[in-house]
Amino acid sequence: MPLMKSWVESANAPDCPFPLNNLPYGVFSAEGSEPRCGVAIGEMILDVTLLEEDGVIAPGESPVFDVPFWNDFMELGPEAWAEFRDTLIAMLGADAAPAARAAAEKALVPAAAAEMHMPFVVSEYTDFYAGRNHAFNVGTMFRGPENALPPNWLHIPIGYNGRASSVVVSGTAFHRPWGQIKAPDEGAPRFAPCKRFDIELEMGAIVGQPSRGPITVAEADAAIFGYVLLNDWSARDIQAWEYQPLGPFQSKATATTISPWIVTKAALEPFRTATPAREKELLPYLDEPGPMLYDIELEVTLRPEGGEETTITRTNYKEMYYSAAQQLAHHTTSGCPMNVGDLLGSGTISGPTKGSRGSLLELSWGGKEPVELTGGGTRSFIEDDDTLTLKGAARGDGYTIGFGDCVGKVLPALDDPYKR
Amino acid sequence: MPLMKSWVESANAPDCPFPLNNLPYGVFSAEGSEPRCGVAIGEMILDVTLLEEDGVIAPGESPVFDVPFWNDFMELGPEAWAEFRDTLIAMLGADAAPAARAAAEKALVPAAAAEMHMPFVVSEYTDFYAGRNHAFNVGTMFRGPENALPPNWLHIPIGYNGRASSVVVSGTAFHRPWGQIKAPDEGAPRFAPCKRFDIELEMGAIVGQPSRGPITVAEADAAIFGYVLLNDWSARDIQAWEYQPLGPFQSKATATTISPWIVTKAALEPFRTATPAREKELLPYLDEPGPMLYDIELEVTLRPEGGEETTITRTNYKEMYYSAAQQLAHHTTSGCPMNVGDLLGSGTISGPTKGSRGSLLELSWGGKEPVELTGGGTRSFIEDDDTLTLKGAARGDGYTIGFGDCVGKVLPALDDPYKR
Repeated sequence: MPLMKSWVESANAPDCPFPLNNLPYGVFSAEGSEPRCGVAIGEMILDVTLLEEDGVIAPGESPVFDVPFWNDFMELGPEAWAEFRDTLIAMLGADAAPAARAAAEKALVPAAAAEMHMPFVVSEYTDFYAGRNHAFNVGTMFRGPENALPPNWLHIPIGYNGRASSVVVSGTAFHRPWGQIKAPDEGAPRFAPCKRFDIELEMGAIVGQPSRGPITVAEADAAIFGYVLLNDWSARDIQAWEYQPLGPFQSKATATTISPWIVTKAALEPFRTATPAREKELLPYLDEPGPMLYDIELEVTLRPEGGEETTITRTNYKEMYYSAAQQLAHHTTSGCPMNVGDLLGSGTISGPTKGSRGSLLELSWGGKEPVELTGGGTRSFIEDDDTLTLKGAARGDGYTIGFGDCVGKVLPALDDPYKR
Repeated sequence: MPLMKSWVESANAPDCPFPLNNLPYGVFSAEGSEPRCGVAIGEMILDVTLLEEDGVIAPGESPVFDVPFWNDFMELGPEAWAEFRDTLIAMLGADAAPAARAAAEKALVPAAAAEMHMPFVVSEYTDFYAGRNHAFNVGTMFRGPENALPPNWLHIPIGYNGRASSVVVSGTAFHRPWGQIKAPDEGAPRFAPCKRFDIELEMGAIVGQPSRGPITVAEADAAIFGYVLLNDWSARDIQAWEYQPLGPFQSKATATTISPWIVTKAALEPFRTATPAREKELLPYLDEPGPMLYDIELEVTLRPEGGEETTITRTNYKEMYYSAAQQLAHHTTSGCPMNVGDLLGSGTISGPTKGSRGSLLELSWGGKEPVELTGGGTRSFIEDDDTLTLKGAARGDGYTIGFGDCVGKVLPALDDPYKR
């Protein structure tokens, strides 16, 4: 599919992340307004809350944009999602009817003047461990290459429940966490600030339709509303001491940053690609009826306070072994009720080469091979006031689909919270 | 504290679970009404939604009982909780003023005619592993008695995030789950109905006040609104295959049953008791400023379809090694945001003797020593159409504090959900 042209000229540049082909959904405020629903187009945001108020659009029988999140819209279901996208394309396309264009022009706000907010209410958050290279790298560090993959790994998209309250929108700074830590050579644990704070480069899939029993991979794919970039910040020293036998807990609960724009499944359709060849045959309930991954280029940059930005890794979402649709299908096998707004983290996306690993734990091989920074200095793990940025782009024929940067700055730990 | 007398005569019987000393909070419907907030007193339920509508009570500046859950009331905070309890005691006490009594009389509904609903909206659900005997029993079965307790167990109240959408109110029947299962002697996993379906006898603590950074055990205790009985249904065969390395997932996601009535911290105050002696000194952030457990007698019964009820275990909440306040304090160490309606499962409560174990896995020692049933037959794990009931009681001086039974019936597995 080629670039679809818009009368919003900035949307037609080949490297613009928000062409008419994209139309991602977010929540913004501008000039002191309350947060409201918007659609990115070029360098502008279309205020759909205003358009709904004015009766120009009406995706549902009752208002869905009178709240600062996209959950009510998601509840309308796939047919309404497709219809609304068609409406937007008709309004913003180069050959828009004059009346539609005039209405849209009144609802455009410059993105540069807007502050972005959480685009949806996270109902529950599940994080997976579905990247083959990541699982192999981490397993090798802890158990050696022969026993790197757990015995269930090639059969189950392994996941665990995360903490929905930890999810924040890009741009949210937070403090380095404290926690209970015991190094292998220490006799007893200490309560101390995390020293091995890390990123995990992931994609997040957003569940847009509920289910109440087991669903197939095809049904799961149909229930997914869209995708965001996701940084699953991880406190490795806290994780190492706490995670046996029931999994990560406080090591993953400080923050989980997502990009500000939900890129819809419709926008990503031209970029579908198959999961890699299966190393072991999967049980039939995980069969994919078609390509379920997406070709999305990903990178992470690190910028020290006042310093230069270094790209520390470049990889691609198609490196995953399991797709989000497979993960969601597996999630429902027990009868687990899934709800609109559930967020599924893909798991860390590492490529096969050293420069394509999705965490500092892997990039610095547990701290043994620190990463060189462009402006001088090295990093094994995140230092105070470092800014980490995830970027994603699907490259089409003369256009780019972007997500908006997924940015987080790690402030120094606060004083001991229990010294009062 | 002795029995506080009520003019609702049924509340004054020594074995009545709902005397004036208790006043637990639930959500009920009767005679076709929409679900509404109520308080149990003797054999009656006081309809506080009606009383608020009529202006008889006004716990908040705006209505809090116009919704069928107690979350809005919880948000008012501890002072409002105490004031409202005083108001109820004044209305329902034997020496109530005639006008107050007359107003209450008009709002009483027989409990026998009521259907109970979820008493609150579960924001997020965390399950702990904080019972010393349970952890030792399970560890012994899997790793032998020398390595039974993981190295972190005596330092951390180990917990993992559960699935809030799985939480249902007592009386909700559900089907035996399907899942991915591989026995140690099998070469590959199968997708099959769970054969080792189990209970976990727990208490649930409900977070009634939010926090946004690390809090002390005293602050955590102050933030807890009340307690329920909780059955953390567990699919042992699914769990055994899936849980390494990131913890239980689908094995715990089918259902989590809670008792219908939230027993407030105020009602349980006379039953406070200390956690057992520490086997290893805890880090100061887990220090308890006073007794944080409660003396609550617990039991579980099993009734086969059409058969007799057998009490399969008798234990006490005071068997826990960590209190809910310690668990909540630990939960906040990373800065994890906690919200009103968060539910914390205590972990399985097993006593030191064979007849006081809190799961069938322990009671039947992994199936090797099946439990004898009163009416004949045995159980290693739950069979189709078995009804499992958790009961709890704190015994005061001439009165009893009850929670209402926590009941669940396990229906046969549905046909293969992927054969269509």
